[in-house]
Amino acid sequence: MTASGLLGEIADVGRDARRGGYSRHAFDSPEHDLRTWFVERAQQLGLDVETDRNGNLWAWWGAPGPDALVTGSHLDSVPGGGAFDGPLGVVSALAAVEALQVKGFRPGRPFAVVVFAEEEGGRFGVPCLGSRLLTGTIDAGRARGLRDPDGVTFAEAAAKAGLDVERAGADPERLGLIGQFLELHVEQGRGLIDLGSPVAVGNTVIAHGRWRFSFAGQGNHAGATLLADRVDPMLPAAETVLAVRRQARTRPDARATVGRLVPTPGGTNVIASTVDLWLDARVPGTSTPELVEEITRAARQAAEEEGCTLAVTRESYSDDVVFDEALRRSLGEWLGSPPELPTGAGHDAAILAGFVPCGMLYVRNPTGISHAPEEFAEVDDVEAGARALADVLERLAK
Amino acid sequence: MTASGLLGEIADVGRDARRGGYSRHAFDSPEHDLRTWFVERAQQLGLDVETDRNGNLWAWWGAPGPDALVTGSHLDSVPGGGAFDGPLGVVSALAAVEALQVKGFRPGRPFAVVVFAEEEGGRFGVPCLGSRLLTGTIDAGRARGLRDPDGVTFAEAAAKAGLDVERAGADPERLGLIGQFLELHVEQGRGLIDLGSPVAVGNTVIAHGRWRFSFAGQGNHAGATLLADRVDPMLPAAETVLAVRRQARTRPDARATVGRLVPTPGGTNVIASTVDLWLDARVPGTSTPELVEEITRAARQAAEEEGCTLAVTRESYSDDVVFDEALRRSLGEWLGSPPELPTGAGHDAAILAGFVPCGMLYVRNPTGISHAPEEFAEVDDVEAGARALADVLERLAK
Repeated sequence: MTASGLLGEIADVGRDARRGGYSRHAFDSPEHDLRTWFVERAQQLGLDVETDRNGNLWAWWGAPGPDALVTGSHLDSVPGGGAFDGPLGVVSALAAVEALQVKGFRPGRPFAVVVFAEEEGGRFGVPCLGSRLLTGTIDAGRARGLRDPDGVTFAEAAAKAGLDVERAGADPERLGLIGQFLELHVEQGRGLIDLGSPVAVGNTVIAHGRWRFSFAGQGNHAGATLLADRVDPMLPAAETVLAVRRQARTRPDARATVGRLVPTPGGTNVIASTVDLWLDARVPGTSTPELVEEITRAARQAAEEEGCTLAVTRESYSDDVVFDEALRRSLGEWLGSPPELPTGAGHDAAILAGFVPCGMLYVRNPTGISHAPEEFAEVDDVEAGARALADVLERLAK
Repeated sequence: MTASGLLGEIADVGRDARRGGYSRHAFDSPEHDLRTWFVERAQQLGLDVETDRNGNLWAWWGAPGPDALVTGSHLDSVPGGGAFDGPLGVVSALAAVEALQVKGFRPGRPFAVVVFAEEEGGRFGVPCLGSRLLTGTIDAGRARGLRDPDGVTFAEAAAKAGLDVERAGADPERLGLIGQFLELHVEQGRGLIDLGSPVAVGNTVIAHGRWRFSFAGQGNHAGATLLADRVDPMLPAAETVLAVRRQARTRPDARATVGRLVPTPGGTNVIASTVDLWLDARVPGTSTPELVEEITRAARQAAEEEGCTLAVTRESYSDDVVFDEALRRSLGEWLGSPPELPTGAGHDAAILAGFVPCGMLYVRNPTGISHAPEEFAEVDDVEAGARALADVLERLAK
């Protein structure tokens, strides 16, 4: 059971013919197949698998208990995502457990491999939904009401998948079992390309959030409506896309993106009645909300000029996270002082870091591309990552 | 069988809960139900219904033959469209036939009520597809290969609906039967609001066309990718939306619209790899292609600035149409000199006008809104339109 061999086993699950890459979303058919596959593989290793009240999977090596060493990641993807983001941390955890079992190691403390649900927010819009629910950093009622693009609520989809959704929400007993959480992940930028190391230790996660901008105008006929009679929400939406880039440029190291934009009704010969766009904004430090405020001002002005209305909704926000310093020091020491890297990507480890000591390992990505089919890691690097994970898990679980 | 009563019969078919209004697209389930309903109603009037090789329905009053008087419209809608655009012309034709039958009239020439397929291009992108195929103004091979947003081809959908798609295409024998074509339609702009008349006679249709702009960049992670490393096709797409309005403003009476814009993969935390947008452009006279050329130049420059590529495809184009002068004169005379109106909306009558004498009647729309749920016509105006249609059909069919 090598990490790359395990990745090969799921290489055909959830391929997206239209977008390229993979679309594996919370409670859809590919994600269900991946969960089933995970349970089988974990059981083969003698682990006891349970689903928590928020849809996260826990595979226990030995009896559950306090001060547990927990490792893992997620199996869902963004729409048209790569093969590594999420699954790499899960397969590396399984491979590490087997490698430790083969050498006769038995953990000296409770030990679990976890698969978090809806890490990407690819279906219900809020990233790290499984870990946010577990930690109570999202209100359970709000989570139940989140809707996918087809209007299906999280509560409906989760219930259909067999979850008792009334019990979803903060789970302090389970959270209290976690002594440390360690997540291995493919590196998602160009950070490791020129550093000569297959593995890095994570130090910080940039503050990040998602905001929905809803412009409303008057749907009408594209041919029969004179320009002077139009109230077309596509115009302020386009102005906002440009304002996002312009305002983000004014702040060193800021990232701000509109990757999702939906005109309704969306006909070629129809002036849209509404346009929704989603802003993903991340600025190191505390100024992300300020950036969003500047963008909102520009959006509001553009909306007024066209006679449109604008509603802005914050869908999620997380502050800057610094991973546990003692754990980082240990990881660095044990792994021969690999590079330390910040990241602009969000992770379940960053949500949990507000509650328990957390650490991350990144595996080199020679394309520097992520959330896209070109995301990649060489087999040698994948195996180096799994070995590094096994190595530190052995030391931590002694 | 009144026109408004017939409209009431189909008022619940194809309602769109998400967009509002109606979504009735070629060969989908609501459109199939409307076809079935039309066949039943036509048969009740003793008409013989046949489907031509391009999916258009023909209901013959008496034997088919040359120099036929043909009237009708379409039953499909734009996504989230109104209740009148298309169906009003069909129900008015059925009501007119019944009114003439009740008074004992029998046509002195072949007479048919027609329902054209995919008039809006709401599913396969090319408007007036049924009449374009019939007249050979679109290549049958190209039409067969047109795809809907889910990737289903026209050939696949039509075959599933029972059409022998290999026979689709120019049908000169059937076209040769049409002596005159008269289409009644809801007015789609504010043209009739202040003129004190429920009905107008159509004189011209503005030149119009659809162009697809496909921008390609590099999909990537919205958090981990620095601004400097981005090749984001959303930026030139937004610049193009603004250029469309800016350039259209420079030409009197021009209309240009981006109502459909699709980023792929379309994730909130994903920089898009491609963005497709559709330009609907209409300028009175011959300068629509020139306007599109100007917009294309702006789009190309914006694409280059971001390092993106751009491909522009013309999906359809129709020149200015002037309806048959003799027919217009007769319609005006018989109907007591109602207003004559130009329109920026395309119609099957404008496609057929290149081959046979065509005329149009418009029914007042007090909102001035079309292609949206707010599209409207008062019952009195609907009935006035149906009476006017019956009146002129009686004179023409003598």
